[in-house]
Amino acid sequence: MNASLLVRNVRPLGGPAVDVSVVDGRFAAFGAGLSPAPGATTVDGRGLLMLPGLVESHTHLDKTLWGQPWRPNTAGPALRDYIENERRVLAASPVPAAERARRLVRQFIATGTTHIRTHVDVDPDTGLVSVEALLQVREAHRDSVGLEIVAFPQQGMLIRPGTAELMERAIGMGVETVGGIDPAGIDNDPIGHLRIVFGIAERTGCGVDIHLHDGGQLGAWEIERIVAFTRAAGLAGRVMVSHAYCLGEIPQGQMEGIGRGLADQRIALMTSAPADGAIPPVAALRAMGVAVCCGSDGIRDAWSPFGNADMLERAMLLAYRFYWAKDEELAAALATVTTDAATALGLADYGLAPGRHADFVLVDAETVGEAVVARPQRALAARRGRITARDGKAAA
Amino acid sequence: MNASLLVRNVRPLGGPAVDVSVVDGRFAAFGAGLSPAPGATTVDGRGLLMLPGLVESHTHLDKTLWGQPWRPNTAGPALRDYIENERRVLAASPVPAAERARRLVRQFIATGTTHIRTHVDVDPDTGLVSVEALLQVREAHRDSVGLEIVAFPQQGMLIRPGTAELMERAIGMGVETVGGIDPAGIDNDPIGHLRIVFGIAERTGCGVDIHLHDGGQLGAWEIERIVAFTRAAGLAGRVMVSHAYCLGEIPQGQMEGIGRGLADQRIALMTSAPADGAIPPVAALRAMGVAVCCGSDGIRDAWSPFGNADMLERAMLLAYRFYWAKDEELAAALATVTTDAATALGLADYGLAPGRHADFVLVDAETVGEAVVARPQRALAARRGRITARDGKAAA
Repeated sequence: MNASLLVRNVRPLGGPAVDVSVVDGRFAAFGAGLSPAPGATTVDGRGLLMLPGLVESHTHLDKTLWGQPWRPNTAGPALRDYIENERRVLAASPVPAAERARRLVRQFIATGTTHIRTHVDVDPDTGLVSVEALLQVREAHRDSVGLEIVAFPQQGMLIRPGTAELMERAIGMGVETVGGIDPAGIDNDPIGHLRIVFGIAERTGCGVDIHLHDGGQLGAWEIERIVAFTRAAGLAGRVMVSHAYCLGEIPQGQMEGIGRGLADQRIALMTSAPADGAIPPVAALRAMGVAVCCGSDGIRDAWSPFGNADMLERAMLLAYRFYWAKDEELAAALATVTTDAATALGLADYGLAPGRHADFVLVDAETVGEAVVARPQRALAARRGRITARDGKAAA
Repeated sequence: MNASLLVRNVRPLGGPAVDVSVVDGRFAAFGAGLSPAPGATTVDGRGLLMLPGLVESHTHLDKTLWGQPWRPNTAGPALRDYIENERRVLAASPVPAAERARRLVRQFIATGTTHIRTHVDVDPDTGLVSVEALLQVREAHRDSVGLEIVAFPQQGMLIRPGTAELMERAIGMGVETVGGIDPAGIDNDPIGHLRIVFGIAERTGCGVDIHLHDGGQLGAWEIERIVAFTRAAGLAGRVMVSHAYCLGEIPQGQMEGIGRGLADQRIALMTSAPADGAIPPVAALRAMGVAVCCGSDGIRDAWSPFGNADMLERAMLLAYRFYWAKDEELAAALATVTTDAATALGLADYGLAPGRHADFVLVDAETVGEAVVARPQRALAARRGRITARDGKAAA
């Protein structure tokens, strides 16, 4: 449901105050003294800062325990322990996945998020139950937030026979992207893993988003393989590598060589800006033309108690991670949850310009830099011109 | 001005709900169905979590630009560039130090902070002007927050003749602690620097708090010297090393040897939990008996745009820095801004127990872990039984 709006007196990205007119869900004009379109609602922007709608590039809505009582983290030390622990925790949750996801989606809307990419587990035990739940959540919130889904083989793919077939069925049900996970470290057959993932993408036309925790030279070698698979499949611009810690662990010259390959194939990178280990050198990769976006990863789930669905906070955590103190650096941090995220996810018609989708958020901040460091409450948010949040609360 | 209170229905540190009675600024009892002391105000705690008053162990109130228009960071790359840039920025600020500090102190009070250690610059150009300003701020807020001052030689001490004499005069004016900074890296005479700092402490009976940014083996060697000076001066329990990045850069066995020396002399460590480089291994040092506390360091100043005076957020950043996901780890993070900070700063009668000062904060969280990760608005804060903040706002 698109809408028409006239937002008076806002400062797009901290520039001079203007009026912004929205017609049928798209920005029509930015300027002084604009008149409302027929049927448009008028909003007093009170000189607030206008940012494009915030973008969550990587979360796991199906796993969250958001809105449930506090649950101590009980996972063992290894990745496999976490996977096993999560199975137990989610099986014991009295709240079904659709309801848990719905609560967190409402929180994302409250923080001015207008688009979310969520990974959703697919495995032979639970089948496509979580995918079906998230498709319902997407439909229920289609006017408030763009929700795109990655069919994600959390428990491995080759080591969990039947998973690949379920992932391909998920794509047929409307899921946009096929996932992958540590082709070497989890499945122990990197080429076999990538053949299946890219095979699904080639047959169905879907995108690819691979979780890569494998470190150092192993991870770097896998990224080189992903670049080669992308080129061979003609999937330039449709592939993302999530986490990719390894790019922060290898020599700079090697990292730059891989960065050139990523830029050439327009392969995006996602980081959640963790602070306890290496992450990709974001500034250097951005300078090479690689689209780098930020995601919350899991929020209040069996893996991690952290996170709050606030993408301005995620941008702050990225800036803090690299001690980005200059205004242009804080603007780069914002880009990872706005414009660069839109590039990474292939979102069409995104941004504060005439003709683009009217997805935006207003905050009480003087500059983009202040918005990132202070993360003020969202005064107002809208998607396709429809008001989705006010004063930090999702609209009814 | 101490006060009497009856706080009904609160959960100290997430334990069972109790009433808490406060008589003349000190906790008198924790239990069911307590009666108010004569003249006591009764507060409905609504089942909220009660934490001890939050402690800021290291900030720079005299440098903040809090409450002023956004100022882009204009510092050059090196430490000396930052020091020179700050001189220019503060000289150009239209708001005097006392007023800038006052605004930030109000923010600290709003976030439930009941004690602050602030470093204050002393140098031959500005003399003791900033110390005088902060002494005024301390007096003006003495009912709302404990404010202790470190006379800090930001520009160096031996390389800025006259600084040491000013620092000693500051101690005579009521400043509690003498500071130091990179005895090797800034002053280029580590033993000369430490002789002067510890000499002031021996003559005046004040404590010592040394900024140590010097890295790796250089920093480690300086910490060993600080341990030796502390022992020789009989100042066990009165010395802190701030930052001490080097402890995260040296081999574990060497770090443990230094940790034993710190524990033996009860020398505390302060970290601001930066994410862009090494920091002391907090869990290992705590396990060895070293008191580790957290501070914001500079807040919205010429050095850094980051920070917001919220010590629960600082605890979250520390937990996030080490991926402390377990409840006991999140409790350790809280300790760095509560009980361990009180030990590190030598605060007497601190904590949620009968006879102790009634400094506390109430938040809407189920557990300590949730309080750290979610950093909820402070519903109520009190110091010495006097209510200092409600609903995230400092009392008038």
